[in-house]
Amino acid sequence: MAGRVGARVAVVGAGIRGSMFARALQQNPAAELVALVEPSEPTRDRVAQELGVPAYADVAELLEHHDDLTGAVIATPDFAHRDAAVRCAAAGLDLLVEKPLATTTEDAEAITAAVEEAGVRAVVGFENRWNEKFSEVRRQLASKEHGRVVHQVSNLNDTVFVPTEMLSWAADSSPAWFLMPHSLDLSMWLADAVPVEVFARGVQRVLPALGVPTWDAVTASFRMSDDSVVVLNSSWVLPTSMPSVFDFRHEVHTDTTTYQIEISPSGVTRYDADRGSWLQFGVHTHERTGRLRGVPIDMVDDFVELLNGAEIDLPDVRHGLTVTRSIEAVHASLASGQPETITA
Amino acid sequence: MAGRVGARVAVVGAGIRGSMFARALQQNPAAELVALVEPSEPTRDRVAQELGVPAYADVAELLEHHDDLTGAVIATPDFAHRDAAVRCAAAGLDLLVEKPLATTTEDAEAITAAVEEAGVRAVVGFENRWNEKFSEVRRQLASKEHGRVVHQVSNLNDTVFVPTEMLSWAADSSPAWFLMPHSLDLSMWLADAVPVEVFARGVQRVLPALGVPTWDAVTASFRMSDDSVVVLNSSWVLPTSMPSVFDFRHEVHTDTTTYQIEISPSGVTRYDADRGSWLQFGVHTHERTGRLRGVPIDMVDDFVELLNGAEIDLPDVRHGLTVTRSIEAVHASLASGQPETITA
Amino acid sequence: MAGRVGARVAVVGAGIRGSMFARALQQNPAAELVALVEPSEPTRDRVAQELGVPAYADVAELLEHHDDLTGAVIATPDFAHRDAAVRCAAAGLDLLVEKPLATTTEDAEAITAAVEEAGVRAVVGFENRWNEKFSEVRRQLASKEHGRVVHQVSNLNDTVFVPTEMLSWAADSSPAWFLMPHSLDLSMWLADAVPVEVFARGVQRVLPALGVPTWDAVTASFRMSDDSVVVLNSSWVLPTSMPSVFDFRHEVHTDTTTYQIEISPSGVTRYDADRGSWLQFGVHTHERTGRLRGVPIDMVDDFVELLNGAEIDLPDVRHGLTVTRSIEAVHASLASGQPETITA
Amino acid sequence: MAGRVGARVAVVGAGIRGSMFARALQQNPAAELVALVEPSEPTRDRVAQELGVPAYADVAELLEHHDDLTGAVIATPDFAHRDAAVRCAAAGLDLLVEKPLATTTEDAEAITAAVEEAGVRAVVGFENRWNEKFSEVRRQLASKEHGRVVHQVSNLNDTVFVPTEMLSWAADSSPAWFLMPHSLDLSMWLADAVPVEVFARGVQRVLPALGVPTWDAVTASFRMSDDSVVVLNSSWVLPTSMPSVFDFRHEVHTDTTTYQIEISPSGVTRYDADRGSWLQFGVHTHERTGRLRGVPIDMVDDFVELLNGAEIDLPDVRHGLTVTRSIEAVHASLASGQPETITA
Repeated sequence: MAGRVGARVAVVGAGIRGSMFARALQQNPAAELVALVEPSEPTRDRVAQELGVPAYADVAELLEHHDDLTGAVIATPDFAHRDAAVRCAAAGLDLLVEKPLATTTEDAEAITAAVEEAGVRAVVGFENRWNEKFSEVRRQLASKEHGRVVHQVSNLNDTVFVPTEMLSWAADSSPAWFLMPHSLDLSMWLADAVPVEVFARGVQRVLPALGVPTWDAVTASFRMSDDSVVVLNSSWVLPTSMPSVFDFRHEVHTDTTTYQIEISPSGVTRYDADRGSWLQFGVHTHERTGRLRGVPIDMVDDFVELLNGAEIDLPDVRHGLTVTRSIEAVHASLASGQPETITA
Repeated sequence: MAGRVGARVAVVGAGIRGSMFARALQQNPAAELVALVEPSEPTRDRVAQELGVPAYADVAELLEHHDDLTGAVIATPDFAHRDAAVRCAAAGLDLLVEKPLATTTEDAEAITAAVEEAGVRAVVGFENRWNEKFSEVRRQLASKEHGRVVHQVSNLNDTVFVPTEMLSWAADSSPAWFLMPHSLDLSMWLADAVPVEVFARGVQRVLPALGVPTWDAVTASFRMSDDSVVVLNSSWVLPTSMPSVFDFRHEVHTDTTTYQIEISPSGVTRYDADRGSWLQFGVHTHERTGRLRGVPIDMVDDFVELLNGAEIDLPDVRHGLTVTRSIEAVHASLASGQPETITA
Repeated sequence: MAGRVGARVAVVGAGIRGSMFARALQQNPAAELVALVEPSEPTRDRVAQELGVPAYADVAELLEHHDDLTGAVIATPDFAHRDAAVRCAAAGLDLLVEKPLATTTEDAEAITAAVEEAGVRAVVGFENRWNEKFSEVRRQLASKEHGRVVHQVSNLNDTVFVPTEMLSWAADSSPAWFLMPHSLDLSMWLADAVPVEVFARGVQRVLPALGVPTWDAVTASFRMSDDSVVVLNSSWVLPTSMPSVFDFRHEVHTDTTTYQIEISPSGVTRYDADRGSWLQFGVHTHERTGRLRGVPIDMVDDFVELLNGAEIDLPDVRHGLTVTRSIEAVHASLASGQPETITA
Repeated sequence: MAGRVGARVAVVGAGIRGSMFARALQQNPAAELVALVEPSEPTRDRVAQELGVPAYADVAELLEHHDDLTGAVIATPDFAHRDAAVRCAAAGLDLLVEKPLATTTEDAEAITAAVEEAGVRAVVGFENRWNEKFSEVRRQLASKEHGRVVHQVSNLNDTVFVPTEMLSWAADSSPAWFLMPHSLDLSMWLADAVPVEVFARGVQRVLPALGVPTWDAVTASFRMSDDSVVVLNSSWVLPTSMPSVFDFRHEVHTDTTTYQIEISPSGVTRYDADRGSWLQFGVHTHERTGRLRGVPIDMVDDFVELLNGAEIDLPDVRHGLTVTRSIEAVHASLASGQPETITA
């Protein structure tokens, strides 16, 4: 632990995720949570009080008051990363940006340009890489002892609760924007390859009838740079009786080996009088210490290490740009009915 | 049982499947197995003796000796249905043709023409329709109480044993020709819709290196006539350590309901000193009676009913033609890299 | 089919199970359903009309009107087999008696004596033996290639729906009487051994509080005649949200092999808006023919074969007596707190 | 982290577990690994060099050289805890003793007496309590919102690899001594109750024939202090083809709720050319930091907290004594064929 300097970090966006990141920073001895940014006044006041740090209405105000920050976590809604990220980068801060980097290639390119011009680093928060199920498979695949990837199939679905009740901005998103950044990032990481072309199809019927005019389900077929194939399926209309709000199953097939990775079932099924569910352990509070634990916490800890000078292989802004371009190409293919090239 | 007339049936092709169909006919009291056709002399002699019926080297010889047949089962290899089917149809026989109807649209059209000109009926042997797991889901979906189908995902894979050891003619086939007729037929039947366009991708690397120059894995994305989407994934390179030689999982998502249909696990797992396996009950001999049981036997029994005058809704030659055209379109899309229209 | 004589059979008890057995007899060409016995007048009239056969209020009346019966199916409630079985046996009829043979050793001995004095045969309806999952494992174990049985663990539970809503007579039964005859019969059959001693424990708290004064759950540990061990666990208080009304998992461990047999999950999971369930295929109507199918139907067909002279190895009255004695010993051990010997 | 005093700890026994505990202490900033004890000279020299701390041949030598220790981890073989634990306790050290506390009640009582006379604290290493699957269920059960426990069934088995290849001292142990301390501790913790009586049965046939004269499988039925029932089944003869070396499934049934806890399947299944396996994540090295993670590491961290003055509810020596008495009673019942009382 010797030689650690103290990362001084702000969190932009104090919703569920932003608050969690703030707490993760507060519990990390190598970091200091300096301040928050949150446009909503009641939320801002509440969170500032809970966490005991100043909170500002916008990034400009933040930067005005704090000229000694070393990093920022961008946890604004998916479509609202650009302004915060560009300003923080321009101020010389290293960034942790929630996935996806942006929901348009234009925004993603603007962030990338700002990061590269400022010479800062930006990590994109593809947190599943910190899930040991995936990281162990990645480690095994990287050894090449099981051959190269032939083909991956990833089903990542949500119950209809997510677009109809959980997200206020579902109509501006889609199962592709909300879910496929995860499954595509993992597919790229596992195969060590990038997508070069995509063909997508979808259905738009159930959610529009429920007042959410977006896609019910999207399927996308990618050709990868190593000539392997990746199929991503994501739906937003699964029944709410499913034992978990998300349904995630990923398969990797190599020359000699098949991996079946099930993320939703935790191993603990509880049947109550009226429903069955899988207990979820994604992020939890360690009972004795009160510390948060789980994959996003590990991600924040790695971001702090980066801020403190470590060389870690994390998903960077160029990678985030590729994912955004790819998901944009999914929507382009949905519109055109044709395969779409994904530019590097 | 009153009023049943006796179906008089020949089986063309006396391999594993043909012999099974012949036994199924012999155990059906409403049918008579009249004769067999088998080009290989040793197989012909052996099976003729085992079953106690005459066996001929070709269909012409069969028809010469037996002018009172009412039906024929065509169980020649996948690519060799045409000649047998056309001759038998022309002779006025109703047909049960193994799936796929043919492996070229040209052959499938020739069989269809022969059947329609002769005014006979032809059933295509999509035997999974007799699997109660699928037939019950079909019955429930047909009631429309769960809404319409939004999207189906069907993974039907084989271990590498199938193309490298089980099939002598794997290089002339593919995971698409061998497996997708099953999953596509089921998807059509469950949604009550036909495919109108397909986009496919595949990988060709592992099997060619093993001396079998065909596709390792194929994924195909179909737009259906009801605007639902069907994704079929089929691989031929799964490891032989899998607990079953095939790996089959089908998902159907409707407006309100999700069905997850797992075909490979039987519910009985056996672990021996050296391997784990799922016991398989596809076709088995009933212990007391020695009678064959299972889905293909039920299919033959229904074919006999048809021969004896019943009106049953069975997959007909036009349906078989559509499936063949669709799988041909899968291969066309693999070649062109573009979505391909499927003509009705 | 030649040489088959016609079994002439009556069904005593026209509840859910009795009606099903009656239909099974009517659809079997080697049997004739001659008449029914049912004490409840409205049920009797309804079922007589539905099935088109005469129905009587009691066995005496039945025997008075029909002196040419060859067999009877005893489908009265569990505790009410004795009188019907004894009278039918005394009249020279072969019997199929629902499991358990009786719910007291005294009743079971009276039936056994009547059967043996009359020189008739009696089959006890342990229908799981007709479940191919068990019969295949039994066949494999009987070959001894996997060594002998070391130890079996069988969990067979019901949701609380069964004792509180489905059965009117649950207070006169228990999870041991209702469920363990199945799991014990299978354990005996799989190991080819009989129980020689049992120790049992149970809990009585939840069901009494719900107004059903019987055991919530019972566990029983048997020493078998081959020195293997069988553990049976049965509960009647599982939550009604479980995907199936029963929960059945049986494990067999031999010298070299483990079998895990899961009966409840069918392979088809359906998630609706409000609940998840496993489709059940226990007894179903074959769509085309309208014929009943399933394990109890196969059992009835075998009983008909027996009536028509076949030699089939079926669970007989002595076996049924052993099972009843064993379950009675379970309750004796629950009362005494000591292991109880089971007399042969 | 302020105010933490430094725990100064020795590890007694430098086998697989002892080395892991030593590394866990070295990576904990609130602890110092002072020294090791290991009787085997080559192991002692190797581990001393790897860890960079002095290593002694026995506890006396350790205590002679280090009079400022605050705690000791006892990781000698199961049957060899007594001497080390008693000496360290007498020297005023707080202890973490691997489970089971001892393999005879006499030894366990001697350790308990030494601990209580010295006024030190002793934690017994029932590490599954640090498994979040169990700790979350425990937390939910403790809230009493799901009612009280009715009945638990715990299957915890090993493949035959464990007694025949992994353990040199299997003949001095049994599946009861090796596995049931885990499942009994969990059952006690989940129900918040202690065992008052046990009845056990077992089989001794396969392992003796393989040269390991101990029990193949043991089943034990406990009456608990709250009148709930616990059934533990443990076998040591499962086939080595199982996807994990251990097979662990625990069920808890309460008034209203059922928990099914599966520990062996991790969610990631890998099929290679020759076998299927579940990846295991029990203890793993965090890739970036090189730090060990997993439930035993969390346990050591809690022990360090205890050493540094925290009040934590950990399994203490009295609890360890009860578990040892209970497992001894299992063996007494195996010998007597009678239920055995477990004294508090």
